[in-house]
Amino acid sequence: MGPIESLISHLSRLPGIGERTAARLAFYLLRANPQYRAGLSESIEALSTIHLCSSCSTVTDRDPCSICSSPVRNTKVLCVVEKPSDIYSIEKLGSFHGFYHVLHGLLSPMEGVGPQDLRIPQLLDRTSKHHFEEIILALSPTVEGDATALYLSKQLMKLEISLTRLASGLAVGTDLEFADQISLGKAFEARSRLR
Amino acid sequence: MGPIESLISHLSRLPGIGERTAARLAFYLLRANPQYRAGLSESIEALSTIHLCSSCSTVTDRDPCSICSSPVRNTKVLCVVEKPSDIYSIEKLGSFHGFYHVLHGLLSPMEGVGPQDLRIPQLLDRTSKHHFEEIILALSPTVEGDATALYLSKQLMKLEISLTRLASGLAVGTDLEFADQISLGKAFEARSRLR
Repeated sequence: MGPIESLISHLSRLPGIGERTAARLAFYLLRANPQYRAGLSESIEALSTIHLCSSCSTVTDRDPCSICSSPVRNTKVLCVVEKPSDIYSIEKLGSFHGFYHVLHGLLSPMEGVGPQDLRIPQLLDRTSKHHFEEIILALSPTVEGDATALYLSKQLMKLEISLTRLASGLAVGTDLEFADQISLGKAFEARSRLR
Repeated sequence: MGPIESLISHLSRLPGIGERTAARLAFYLLRANPQYRAGLSESIEALSTIHLCSSCSTVTDRDPCSICSSPVRNTKVLCVVEKPSDIYSIEKLGSFHGFYHVLHGLLSPMEGVGPQDLRIPQLLDRTSKHHFEEIILALSPTVEGDATALYLSKQLMKLEISLTRLASGLAVGTDLEFADQISLGKAFEARSRLR
């Protein structure tokens, strides 16, 4: 197998990339600037230096991570997320300036995932040692997300904090006609007053 | 910029890969088997060893390429293609067993691309030295493909060979209703007899 076939075979194992797309990408890379190619392959290799932040459990190449070690973040707000990529999505928003805590999963009794399998003990330890004014549960509005939010709200009940969860409702830009019944129901429950 | 952000930035420069897909791929790679990751980055780096085959002008890591140096190919048939990835598509079919010649483009008077800008001199030299029984022009049915086929058919006229071109018509599996007028016209012209 030559280098091109080998690259196509590797690329086609990526999610959402079929063999035709893999071939297109491989031939694109072949024509691409060698510096860009070197940068791409180096950044793939640099993933080996990634580990979990000892404070927030996100993926990072230093410890503590760049957010946990930042002097300009709001030390009073903590945002709890399921996975590291959620931090990436929220950071792109640019409107949240507090700290994060990554659970690395959600509670799922059906699949045998309990609190000890997640970074929940670390969260409880962290919140008991550092006084946050607000903890935002930025968990997906799914059965597992709901179960995890319920469990955490019970565990964190003794702390004098504001505990919030992201709003559920109609996705912005979608037509009401295409909203599922549950989202529509949530949107009704959480309706906001205009005047 | 950390390794993950760097990887996302590199991946999002690939064609058809937006920033969201790039982030999804980067976090997939982060969770992937390190061996797979090493194989991927090595196969990207190995593209630097690629050059053009001195016989057929395709991209290869050896010279002559694996097809030109194969002892089991049909030496009597030559297939002329626009670009190296066309060879990949045709080889996947598995039904063509002759040799190839890559033009690296198509004639385009509008864009100032003449015969000397393509591997046409090499093709004429090759076909005058080696006797092929058939030369198949596997060029796209576009204005440039038609112009190139016309030019080559004139240049190759003196050779006693069978010169063919791939059939145009309705794409298999599509509804006649959605075929464009030109394809439909070609399909009528090249209709085949059933009985």
